[in-house]
Amino acid sequence: MVERNDGFVEPAGTAAYFADIADWPEHERQAFEAVTGRVLDVGAGAGRASLAAQERGMEVVALDVSPGAVEVCRRRGVEQTVLGGIEAATGTFDTFLYLGGNLGLIGSPGAAPAFFGALGALGGPEARIIGTGLDPYGTTDPDHLAFHEENRRQGRMPGELSIRIRRRLVTTGWIDLLWLSLSELAALAAPHGWHVAESWSHGPLYSVVMTSS
Amino acid sequence: MVERNDGFVEPAGTAAYFADIADWPEHERQAFEAVTGRVLDVGAGAGRASLAAQERGMEVVALDVSPGAVEVCRRRGVEQTVLGGIEAATGTFDTFLYLGGNLGLIGSPGAAPAFFGALGALGGPEARIIGTGLDPYGTTDPDHLAFHEENRRQGRMPGELSIRIRRRLVTTGWIDLLWLSLSELAALAAPHGWHVAESWSHGPLYSVVMTSS
Repeated sequence: MVERNDGFVEPAGTAAYFADIADWPEHERQAFEAVTGRVLDVGAGAGRASLAAQERGMEVVALDVSPGAVEVCRRRGVEQTVLGGIEAATGTFDTFLYLGGNLGLIGSPGAAPAFFGALGALGGPEARIIGTGLDPYGTTDPDHLAFHEENRRQGRMPGELSIRIRRRLVTTGWIDLLWLSLSELAALAAPHGWHVAESWSHGPLYSVVMTSS
Repeated sequence: MVERNDGFVEPAGTAAYFADIADWPEHERQAFEAVTGRVLDVGAGAGRASLAAQERGMEVVALDVSPGAVEVCRRRGVEQTVLGGIEAATGTFDTFLYLGGNLGLIGSPGAAPAFFGALGALGGPEARIIGTGLDPYGTTDPDHLAFHEENRRQGRMPGELSIRIRRRLVTTGWIDLLWLSLSELAALAAPHGWHVAESWSHGPLYSVVMTSS
């Protein structure tokens, strides 16, 4: 299950982490068509995106801070895996993949310069970010709206949160996430030279292709 | 979900709370045949046992410390409901019902005298306890075995625990539970004049009819 920093808990399944590309949400499949060149799959999880890119003949590096995730990627056939955060990646990449809501890993407005800066440093001249996010304003849930309001009161963006995953006796550390609307994402990325070139959405979820300039 | 005092978390469904008697575990149905007279359904939950007894023409009082549970019992047709613990019950009863694992509400070895004493005071001459429990020794799960061992180390019975229920932002207080093997239950109850007259089991779960003398 997932626990949010306000104590909100919610069951969480794992099936989506193992889904074949045919079973991905349509907006992810559409964005995935823009994947090209050497690919860095950030927060690769169980490797579904790495495997899909690899099957299409691309060179892929699956990156994850979780040793368990890296091990699962390897066992499922991902050829290149790296344990760690973005600082552990080496070489130059044409595509940075942040599917499965991984654009939330921007983490916070304050972390955005380092986030986009790191990708700028690792990206080739035509580098693109292909990822999915969650528009926090696409909810009418009173608990979530109250969470946004409390964030505003504390001078934070409504979509700032921390989560941890718990299963039986296992608890991860707290992970900072930042849910942004498309326009918030565009505004946060622009000062660092990244622009939303294309986007697709389904309800509050969206996929984007971002290019650098 | 259910959270144990060592941080162990587990999903928990609600369907069993609403099950018709035809869908109860067989050992519960067998024990239920011994229900007689005026019935106190302790920890009535959504009222499944109260409704089953009421349908069989018995007078039933559904008791629960949860205002929500009492409200659900009322809406589902339970005629007599009382909000509170055992001290809130009045009158004399022939059967004390502790189905759905509610014998765990004995809580701790130290609470057993008050538990059995209260039922003795409320019970008529032929009073019986009909309830279900969980034998803690019927597990090979390493997390549960480690929990038992830590309990032993602290001088507690292996089956002593506290749980709380969490759903979204709602968290109950901590609830003490005591899981006993049938022989532990018999040993704990005997000094207070209660004896296991009949029992049925399925895996680690069992149902008992206890009589007083």
